[in-house]
Amino acid sequence: MTIDKTSSRPPASLAAFADLLGRLPGPDAAARAAASARNDSLTKPAGALGRLETLAIWHCGWAGEPRPRDPAAQIVVFAGNHGVAARGVSAYPADVTEQMVANFRAGGAAINQLARLHGAALDVIPLELDRPVADFCEGPAMSEAEVLAALRIGWEAVDPAADLLILGEMGIANTTSAAALSAALFGGGAEDWAGPGTGVAGAAFAAKKAAIDDGLALHAQAVAAAGALGPIEALRRLGGREIAAMSGALLSARMQATPVLLDGFVATASAAVWAAMREGALDHCQAAHVSAEPGHRRLLAHLGLEPLLDLGMRLGEGSGGAAALGLLRAAIACQSGMASFDEAAVAGPA
Amino acid sequence: MTIDKTSSRPPASLAAFADLLGRLPGPDAAARAAASARNDSLTKPAGALGRLETLAIWHCGWAGEPRPRDPAAQIVVFAGNHGVAARGVSAYPADVTEQMVANFRAGGAAINQLARLHGAALDVIPLELDRPVADFCEGPAMSEAEVLAALRIGWEAVDPAADLLILGEMGIANTTSAAALSAALFGGGAEDWAGPGTGVAGAAFAAKKAAIDDGLALHAQAVAAAGALGPIEALRRLGGREIAAMSGALLSARMQATPVLLDGFVATASAAVWAAMREGALDHCQAAHVSAEPGHRRLLAHLGLEPLLDLGMRLGEGSGGAAALGLLRAAIACQSGMASFDEAAVAGPA
Repeated sequence: MTIDKTSSRPPASLAAFADLLGRLPGPDAAARAAASARNDSLTKPAGALGRLETLAIWHCGWAGEPRPRDPAAQIVVFAGNHGVAARGVSAYPADVTEQMVANFRAGGAAINQLARLHGAALDVIPLELDRPVADFCEGPAMSEAEVLAALRIGWEAVDPAADLLILGEMGIANTTSAAALSAALFGGGAEDWAGPGTGVAGAAFAAKKAAIDDGLALHAQAVAAAGALGPIEALRRLGGREIAAMSGALLSARMQATPVLLDGFVATASAAVWAAMREGALDHCQAAHVSAEPGHRRLLAHLGLEPLLDLGMRLGEGSGGAAALGLLRAAIACQSGMASFDEAAVAGPA
Repeated sequence: MTIDKTSSRPPASLAAFADLLGRLPGPDAAARAAASARNDSLTKPAGALGRLETLAIWHCGWAGEPRPRDPAAQIVVFAGNHGVAARGVSAYPADVTEQMVANFRAGGAAINQLARLHGAALDVIPLELDRPVADFCEGPAMSEAEVLAALRIGWEAVDPAADLLILGEMGIANTTSAAALSAALFGGGAEDWAGPGTGVAGAAFAAKKAAIDDGLALHAQAVAAAGALGPIEALRRLGGREIAAMSGALLSARMQATPVLLDGFVATASAAVWAAMREGALDHCQAAHVSAEPGHRRLLAHLGLEPLLDLGMRLGEGSGGAAALGLLRAAIACQSGMASFDEAAVAGPA
């Protein structure tokens, strides 16, 4: 399949987004096979670079060549506010979302340091921070127009020139939203999906769990009634603008055959929307890490994704994705730069 | 304690190496405390960068400052040959050690790509490749003069200007040696410590296990009789030049307060010599990864080291250390570059 990286206009309706799932491009099979053959020829025992080898071959398939360059990575951080924050579900006040956007712009956040380390472009996209999405305990978080707008903004945020995409988010209370969305997609309730997020305990954690279960009870019937579009309906009712924007960006990346390093719980929940609608929808993604948020490990298991890192991170911002970028760059550096046994005149196995 | 990084002459005897274990410098407690306080002030929920935070604080203690620079890393790969290779314990012929040294020098190996990616210096030090150490099934692998020479070469290989050290090795049959050494240090036999190495199975794996158990039986009494110097005697009798050189470099790094990312099974076995003689001897080390070689996981558990990566790598060359270097650089970039809540005017927890 020929991928045109320059003509990716955002779909005009929720149904048009869903339609894309029926025609997802796959990796370049020839490039992938050539990459695998090249990997077998390199001066190391077969398989001795472990996961770095499979990671490199995966990347080659999406890059469309067996010796890709050091990837030009784009990190996009979407920020959004959540009505459910008023229920005291977070350790931080909702104002912190906007303050952290300023911090991203000033270069002071973790993701700025990680982007700089790896020479990655960093785009920060705040989404109507002064107009939080509605409290999902009282009604749908977003109207159809609102979720569509967020999906389209996410879609357009992807730079066609990027070799790799990392999606991050900032949004006080958004692990509450991600837990509710995950439960709506894969079953279970707050007990299964809620975690401490930025560090809630006691009454705040109880409020978080109550909000998740209340939201699920309020919206379950409508999500079920949406049939094949149920996951998008769950995103609209329980998600947030930054979550929908990540969903849109992820699908945009797929249509351009751009591989993605998935960050933590919230980013993975945004991707799970498409996985719940179509098997293989996340074939262009690798799980960068498993976070300390317990729902993330459960979500990765549902998605069949094996994390590259397990370091107890739980920051969001794309920070886990950026931490794993060093591993992907290492894998590609070996794949593209190593000599073959023939080139180096090294003897193979006896 | 004031560390003089420029006057580190190598000890003149095995006893002098052992004596150093009684006066190992520790990290700079004030720098470590300042780093921890700074970490607490940064714009993220407390602990949200997980292991990256403890890693950064650990590095700051050895660097002696709370906002260290991106580390100038030195990777040293020592190469040695082993008499026990003649027993068919490896999937590769012994000539491959020298061929791989040429490949390192030509820039074609995995470690070259990883060093380049991270801007690390790479030194390759072959150790009398045409004169393998003796087959430890027949006698001691090295004389006292030989093991001392290797320890001293390793000591001198450490660049006093380096902020961080990664030790790697190349030596056909050296996982056989590392398994025997680990067993001599911590008990057990081939069944506990032998693994496929570069990929042996069947008769070769049986030969490998037999060699390990034969070597242990031959040398156990002499190692026990060496008393407090037993681990050095085990290194002499069951090790190899590249292993002893890594031991020497590791101790040299400690005396200069230079932190070390430990690579895989063979590198960790070289470090275990000192750990078996003195508690805390590896406080300046982090385990970069746990390799696919099963003995490595067991060895790390004995040493109380928690690996940063678990990616099924089993190449040696310092490749696991270099793969984890991206994580350490990420941790330091966040520690040194992030804004505090005050600087960024971000609200703390409610």
